[in-house]
Amino acid sequence: MKWMEMPKPELKKLFDGTLAAYEGRKAKGLKLNMSRGVPGREQLALSNDMLTILGEGDYLSPGGTDCRNYGGLEGIPEMKAIFADILDIRPDEVIVGGNSSLAMMFDNVAVNMSHGVRDGEPWMRQGRVKFLCPAPGYDRHFTICEYFHIEMIPVQMTGDGPDMDMVEALVSSDPMVKGMWCVPVFSNPEGCVYSDGTVLRMAALKPAADDFRLYWDNAYTIHNFSGPRPAIPNILRECEKAGNPNMPLIFASFSKVSMAGAGVAAMASSLSNCEYIRKRFFVQTIGPDKLNQLRHVRFFKNFEGVMAHMAKMADIVRPKFELVQNILQKELGGLGLAEWNVPAGGYFVSFNAPRGCAKRIVSLCKEAGVILTGAGATFPYGRDPWDRNIRIAPTYPSLDELREAMEIFCLSVRLAALETLM
Amino acid sequence: MKWMEMPKPELKKLFDGTLAAYEGRKAKGLKLNMSRGVPGREQLALSNDMLTILGEGDYLSPGGTDCRNYGGLEGIPEMKAIFADILDIRPDEVIVGGNSSLAMMFDNVAVNMSHGVRDGEPWMRQGRVKFLCPAPGYDRHFTICEYFHIEMIPVQMTGDGPDMDMVEALVSSDPMVKGMWCVPVFSNPEGCVYSDGTVLRMAALKPAADDFRLYWDNAYTIHNFSGPRPAIPNILRECEKAGNPNMPLIFASFSKVSMAGAGVAAMASSLSNCEYIRKRFFVQTIGPDKLNQLRHVRFFKNFEGVMAHMAKMADIVRPKFELVQNILQKELGGLGLAEWNVPAGGYFVSFNAPRGCAKRIVSLCKEAGVILTGAGATFPYGRDPWDRNIRIAPTYPSLDELREAMEIFCLSVRLAALETLM
Repeated sequence: MKWMEMPKPELKKLFDGTLAAYEGRKAKGLKLNMSRGVPGREQLALSNDMLTILGEGDYLSPGGTDCRNYGGLEGIPEMKAIFADILDIRPDEVIVGGNSSLAMMFDNVAVNMSHGVRDGEPWMRQGRVKFLCPAPGYDRHFTICEYFHIEMIPVQMTGDGPDMDMVEALVSSDPMVKGMWCVPVFSNPEGCVYSDGTVLRMAALKPAADDFRLYWDNAYTIHNFSGPRPAIPNILRECEKAGNPNMPLIFASFSKVSMAGAGVAAMASSLSNCEYIRKRFFVQTIGPDKLNQLRHVRFFKNFEGVMAHMAKMADIVRPKFELVQNILQKELGGLGLAEWNVPAGGYFVSFNAPRGCAKRIVSLCKEAGVILTGAGATFPYGRDPWDRNIRIAPTYPSLDELREAMEIFCLSVRLAALETLM
Repeated sequence: MKWMEMPKPELKKLFDGTLAAYEGRKAKGLKLNMSRGVPGREQLALSNDMLTILGEGDYLSPGGTDCRNYGGLEGIPEMKAIFADILDIRPDEVIVGGNSSLAMMFDNVAVNMSHGVRDGEPWMRQGRVKFLCPAPGYDRHFTICEYFHIEMIPVQMTGDGPDMDMVEALVSSDPMVKGMWCVPVFSNPEGCVYSDGTVLRMAALKPAADDFRLYWDNAYTIHNFSGPRPAIPNILRECEKAGNPNMPLIFASFSKVSMAGAGVAAMASSLSNCEYIRKRFFVQTIGPDKLNQLRHVRFFKNFEGVMAHMAKMADIVRPKFELVQNILQKELGGLGLAEWNVPAGGYFVSFNAPRGCAKRIVSLCKEAGVILTGAGATFPYGRDPWDRNIRIAPTYPSLDELREAMEIFCLSVRLAALETLM
């Protein structure tokens, strides 16, 4: 029976029972932080051999580079080749960076503020820059915009990706729209894979601003855990065909493939964009840590090695996502209270609570020892217009911890819903 | 006999002999790049054990941090402690970064352009920012200024550091002077150690701009190779005493201690500056590579370990600097042509050729297969007003290569001088 249709006295009885169950759980004093998409121990352990993969005197890349010394601003060729295969582009379209693709995104925005895009007018001198932000979306993208006082325009997500009618209308009409965040495969948090139509329309945008860029954060392209790796059109090639060769800036990272804090990040773009970036890198840095790239090259060997590794990763991650689905279904299914997605990859389950309940649920969970991502974090400025979206990040806890946490979560959802209904 | 006093026919004879010797060397077809301060093979080999220092399952820091995972924006405490001891400050005044202190300097300037210093007026909105640039100085500092269109004001170096009369006059009178580059110990390229008086006057500056900062690049503080480590006053403490607690931004790095491209960099400043930087780091990055910090902590253990390592480093570097001095003295001593410094540490010998000859010498060396740092690179905008300063970087070549290169260098100096005299 849907709770909306339930008579008050029954709701009251339900509330009392739920509250008692919740208080019981709370008394157990669980402490669990599920606020970020952090790999769990077993996932990290998959790459433990990387700790010892370099032998004595083992510092030359296959191509003969001394990875200990300075130089190699774009990374060693073998690491570029692996990224190129993952992104289905050419190695010379890749620039390998440090351990953080977030830092590479921040850096690109920072430099556009002071220098403009490819020596265009600096954004700082153009007035208030705007970015389109598919929402719900990745909070760290939004934080970068906030930091640089970039106005964020939320774009509704659909099952096919961002609402392209809205995107086309905004991008083609407003020259202050300079960028758009995209997580095209297994979007954060919804696990959405952009449809072919969405990608093709994205590539064919006719921006009013000639310095408009797609920030194509392909963080989860190899993170399928249920079913095959999604194939979406190649954004670099499609943008070329559509006459927008320099529009996409692609980002990728090994943070959720090898070691979260000691992975390797990269960006990819047109040869001509890469040339611009290289020039800046010469001023900016002594170059990335090539020894860590060598560790990755030795450990993964090649694209096939990466994919074999990700198959093992999927086996670890899958049961956690299944557990989340099972508990949500068991505890909340059929009550007409909430909706959630069933992702085939990525790192999150996007949960839509009854309107006006997300903050309350997150707070109830916190009181009972489970820290979730803050309600609203998945929206620009932390403002979820309906206060309903919650990002569930199942990877970090063990299965036992996750079960307990999800039961507390479901109790909190029921409690918050009942408070509203009564 | 000084060449200036030599009669023309003798000069002609000397020229013919020198040219023949130079052509003979050129015919040997040497290929040697001495353009940058790059550690040589033996230096890097000192840290080779770092490649294999982490054992199986060896990823927990002494304090229990899982160095594989996300988090730890300021670095692991044990790495902070080592930097604190090197810089003689407290660990909480240190923020550990990635592998490049240059990147940390660039980053600080970049953020000041868009955000100002500590939420002050962004430099981009204040008009043309100026930096004081002791000259000769480090070309990469100058390149950062050029990139951000920061006007560079050269300040003459003296034996005690930058000309402080000029520094005080400029800093106290011009609110657009926002920064000054300092390499206080074994300055690049002159190997100058700032005197106590210079450091104290620096700390007591009364800047017209409240967002003025000292960029205190302490790159060579433990790089003494002849004699004890220089003790200069502690800039952080002296600035506190003088009422300028937030003025210094200190940078340091292991690039020339462990692996050049796979070292660990850090910056240090007042607690209150560190707090600001931490807030930005949260937006900017997933955090530094803590596994590489762990490698450093395991390898060096502590400050004493670092110093013992640097003593071995000195033994490798010293003979190269001695060789340079011997050849310069033998080939050019007493001729009244050139001057050069005799550094007790650092990475360079600063050579002053006859005026108007530096470009010609670098070009003659290049023709004979020896690439030097470009003439002028040690001055802002690459403009050496006397075209005489050349930076010699002796560390990278082997002793045999270095001998050959220095002989070619001296022949080139003689040739260029004779061309001018005749």
